[in-house]
Amino acid sequence: MADNDNPTYIPVRLGVRDVPPPGTISPAAQQALSDGAAMPRPIWPAPDDLVGWRQAIAASEAMWAEAAASMLTAAAASVETRAIAGVPCHECAPTAGAAADGPLYLFIHGGAFVFGGGAYAQAQGARAAAALGMRTIAVDYRMPPDHPYPAAPEDCLAVYRALLETHDPRRIVIGGGSAGGNLAAVITLMARDRGLPSPAGVMLLTPEADLTEAGDTFRTNADLDVMLKRALPECNALYAAGHDLRDPYLSPLFADFTRGFPPTLVQSGTRDLFLSNSVLIHRKLRDAGIDAELHVWEAMPHSSFGRGDTPEGDAVNAELRRFIARVTGD
Amino acid sequence: MADNDNPTYIPVRLGVRDVPPPGTISPAAQQALSDGAAMPRPIWPAPDDLVGWRQAIAASEAMWAEAAASMLTAAAASVETRAIAGVPCHECAPTAGAAADGPLYLFIHGGAFVFGGGAYAQAQGARAAAALGMRTIAVDYRMPPDHPYPAAPEDCLAVYRALLETHDPRRIVIGGGSAGGNLAAVITLMARDRGLPSPAGVMLLTPEADLTEAGDTFRTNADLDVMLKRALPECNALYAAGHDLRDPYLSPLFADFTRGFPPTLVQSGTRDLFLSNSVLIHRKLRDAGIDAELHVWEAMPHSSFGRGDTPEGDAVNAELRRFIARVTGD
Repeated sequence: MADNDNPTYIPVRLGVRDVPPPGTISPAAQQALSDGAAMPRPIWPAPDDLVGWRQAIAASEAMWAEAAASMLTAAAASVETRAIAGVPCHECAPTAGAAADGPLYLFIHGGAFVFGGGAYAQAQGARAAAALGMRTIAVDYRMPPDHPYPAAPEDCLAVYRALLETHDPRRIVIGGGSAGGNLAAVITLMARDRGLPSPAGVMLLTPEADLTEAGDTFRTNADLDVMLKRALPECNALYAAGHDLRDPYLSPLFADFTRGFPPTLVQSGTRDLFLSNSVLIHRKLRDAGIDAELHVWEAMPHSSFGRGDTPEGDAVNAELRRFIARVTGD
Repeated sequence: MADNDNPTYIPVRLGVRDVPPPGTISPAAQQALSDGAAMPRPIWPAPDDLVGWRQAIAASEAMWAEAAASMLTAAAASVETRAIAGVPCHECAPTAGAAADGPLYLFIHGGAFVFGGGAYAQAQGARAAAALGMRTIAVDYRMPPDHPYPAAPEDCLAVYRALLETHDPRRIVIGGGSAGGNLAAVITLMARDRGLPSPAGVMLLTPEADLTEAGDTFRTNADLDVMLKRALPECNALYAAGHDLRDPYLSPLFADFTRGFPPTLVQSGTRDLFLSNSVLIHRKLRDAGIDAELHVWEAMPHSSFGRGDTPEGDAVNAELRRFIARVTGD
């Protein structure tokens, strides 16, 4: 972010302050902000510390194996893991049933491009299938350190390409949160650039749209966001593996959307470290004449208010369902 | 905001920080943030200090009389001041011309319910007419200390009611910024509740939707917003004159929108003290099933980047024009 520091401009000096959860959100959301405030800040290994990364990934997987088991039990969805185009995928179906010819959600998990595969991807896919009432394919794409960029988008695109053989693209929605939002945008750009049909819509949930992390809220919401307690330059460097972070396939904020992009929903929160990512890509889409909706929730940090259910999380899902119905014609 | 301070919740502690203008906005916008950072913080008189208020209002009018003259000269619009329903109004027409049967903008100026009449209302109306390319009626409504609530919304509603005699409501858009956004929402509610036809659309620009100022960004964007350097409890108390701030005609955030509301555009910025006002009323509208768009600009403070022209200000106007065309069928 050093290139933001133009010495000819006067900064705003902010003093010490304690910011409590506001009374304008649900008690469950207030509790989540309070719980988050008490959590320690993570430490990322240096990009070349491969031992450190493998330890961090193993610790994340162990934590999620446990947490995901109870999430899977609670989610009203069945999960079947199988390979699609050689890529492991978790195929999730709502227990309540979904029309066989209903729209399909190609879901791409988050986790800073490094974490969140396996049990986490499975649990998040099941939650999405249940919450949205639709069949969901959660892609368990390859990740660094062994498989940096472009393994992840190539895997996700291979799955999309395979789905096109049996599904009308006008019935497919691609989406995901954080790094998953980045990859959802990137594979939609790749599909466009390679002459594949576009999906009916794209859902970018608090998306990691700009790996250079130039956005203002990387500063203004630093420490305020209790879910994402620090920026991700180490993770981004590990993922990019020397590629230019400003390449549109790494940072879709820099893409040329005037060449076309499907209808898009962008979601964020006022305490989200990625609020700038979100509003910047929304504006970029709008300025290119793309049908793009923005939804920002009061005091919401990155990735919503923790893992539990909140009225705000339900409201996000209600917006997603409405968007999916609109763009797929359901 | 004291009732937000639930001692059972852990606050986030933020340290001292200098926040420069980000590199993600235009140079003109960066300069505006820098200029704003150097400006002093205003002091509001106590609500019962009528001498203080009259001095503050006179000082504001003197400042605007000068500034407005050059703004009027620069704006490509003609202005004629006349009474409509007994209320002084500035009728503004773009110099480039607007179709005689084109849509009409009922513009309500901001200024914390206390300031911004006369030359300011005139200049803002002329700027809007030029920027939106449409005939604009800027209402010069009565204000405290002599005319507190409900004088302002009654004046604005009287003008709307008079316009209905000669204009199809499906060709009228009501809007305004800050306190003007509050009043635009309030008179649309009043019109609904009194059985008048609704306008085609409503534009709430960084709206003062909640006079209780409970929103999270009253804390998180305090001091960061260089245009609105402090909250407005004194102004709100002077305006409300003892009425309950939670009355929907004072704080439209608390209205029941499930009883109907026209299509609405809500605009804000990530550094706006009223960002919470904006996202909360957008969510309230959406949750009531109302057609409502949200547009949030990167690092933008309250009321855009100062008085000068910026690419961001042009982009706001482009969104307003597109919204007006959509809701009026133009």
